[in-house]
Amino acid sequence: MRPAGQATTLAEYVARQQARVDDALERWVPPESTLPESIHKAMRYSLFAGGKRIRPILCLAAAEAVSDAPAGIESAACTLELVHTYSLIHDDLPALDNDDLRRGVPTCHKVFGDAIAILAGDALLTLAFQVLAQLECGADRKVALIAELSTAAGTVGGMIGGQVCDLEGEGRHPNAALLETIHRAKTGALLRASLRMGGIYAGADHKQLDALSCYGKHVGLAFQIIDDVLDVEQPSEALGKTAGKDAQQHKITFPAVYGLERSRAMAEEERLAAHLALRPFDKRAERLRELADFIVHRRA
Amino acid sequence: MRPAGQATTLAEYVARQQARVDDALERWVPPESTLPESIHKAMRYSLFAGGKRIRPILCLAAAEAVSDAPAGIESAACTLELVHTYSLIHDDLPALDNDDLRRGVPTCHKVFGDAIAILAGDALLTLAFQVLAQLECGADRKVALIAELSTAAGTVGGMIGGQVCDLEGEGRHPNAALLETIHRAKTGALLRASLRMGGIYAGADHKQLDALSCYGKHVGLAFQIIDDVLDVEQPSEALGKTAGKDAQQHKITFPAVYGLERSRAMAEEERLAAHLALRPFDKRAERLRELADFIVHRRA
Repeated sequence: MRPAGQATTLAEYVARQQARVDDALERWVPPESTLPESIHKAMRYSLFAGGKRIRPILCLAAAEAVSDAPAGIESAACTLELVHTYSLIHDDLPALDNDDLRRGVPTCHKVFGDAIAILAGDALLTLAFQVLAQLECGADRKVALIAELSTAAGTVGGMIGGQVCDLEGEGRHPNAALLETIHRAKTGALLRASLRMGGIYAGADHKQLDALSCYGKHVGLAFQIIDDVLDVEQPSEALGKTAGKDAQQHKITFPAVYGLERSRAMAEEERLAAHLALRPFDKRAERLRELADFIVHRRA
Repeated sequence: MRPAGQATTLAEYVARQQARVDDALERWVPPESTLPESIHKAMRYSLFAGGKRIRPILCLAAAEAVSDAPAGIESAACTLELVHTYSLIHDDLPALDNDDLRRGVPTCHKVFGDAIAILAGDALLTLAFQVLAQLECGADRKVALIAELSTAAGTVGGMIGGQVCDLEGEGRHPNAALLETIHRAKTGALLRASLRMGGIYAGADHKQLDALSCYGKHVGLAFQIIDDVLDVEQPSEALGKTAGKDAQQHKITFPAVYGLERSRAMAEEERLAAHLALRPFDKRAERLRELADFIVHRRA
């Protein structure tokens, strides 16, 4: 494997990091043949259905910004994909968003049934902590990573809390304050944790960790704004999930509150703020800068 | 609070330990007023619906067998109840066992709906690792505890794996091998982890940890046998959950494979084996001995 140098395009860099993350997932997730087979098939089905691996890639890039390719970082990074995928499987259940299509293929419960889908989500969340407990780094860093991930995935300002606000906000009058609360927790917390976990693993000092948090906050907001915009603008085939669901379910989204044009402008502001946050870093943070641009300018 | 001495009856000891565990849960679980309120209400509803706290109490008693009342052990112990309660909430969902009654009250999804019940389960599991990452003990012990709990709750020989085998075994011909596989994973792994976590927190050496594992294996088996027997013998009011569900759902149980009389005899054998396992311990393991007796002789 080549070192993560700057001599490649962002597309090449992303493809290489995706492969590293997929390799780590391949190592950590039990093979389909492990008993009971159905649960491992379901876990692998959803994990390897073609996610973009944005969270692990941000984690890897954050670690690189702090130090040269710390050994074993890809195992830490892949736990973010385990948690993200669990949240997608549970969100897609009939009892929640009731979605049939995800990452371009039928959702986990459409293929394996609701019971196995619920348990596969539980299993991916559980596995994330199994992996973190077995990382190559020291115990203090493992504990810091576990604290970071569990808090970001939790109910108070974390992913589950955001999901609850999102569910309960459906059909309510769209307003900026509620939108910010939902976003910060539902997608923002895990994206921010992605950056912080990369920093923690690589031994970031307080100043660096604050900068990564700030970058993560702005990139997370930009990511969500663009996600909402694409849900309006793009067809399902391009997104790999059912487009137009937000409006259909009367979700509170950025386009619903601010309109498309203002939403795009806000994403651009967040992109610039993300760049500003990286000022304490030298050119080793170049991939983070490029990733902020990519997140705002993506088409799916 | 009095020290956990031997001058009290087992009933008094259990009541005191239950209160310690409930105090710890009260401290670690966000208040109902914390936003979003619905998720914290659902988490607390299921946690404080009157569980026996058998797993945390085994954890506390194991720690006492190794050393004198290590500070903060009740926080580690309460994570076992967080994980156990999450598993009950998810198991009771319509997509799984579809149960209406648990711990004597309507199940979580009957009160809060399926969506909040799914997320409350997710939240309790996540919180368990948040708590473990913040224990008073050193980082090495925290990591060992997290590894222990996540493995016991996982898919390979752990709780989720057992739940999948149980679901898939419904309606199949009852046989001893499948029964053992299901039990060892579904309830055995977490009960065994309860003992081991108590030992780890208290600084058990290898020999002590092996003895606690062995005790946990036998007590876990005894616990499951008696659980299956009570499901046949006792009315719902005594159990606090719907009685007779196992037969109704064609679950593979000990009475189904061995009959009631032989099942009771097997539980008695496991009780004696649990006592034998404790031979390396002095009288500080007396509560563990009494708990093995209690588990086999209980009526609910």
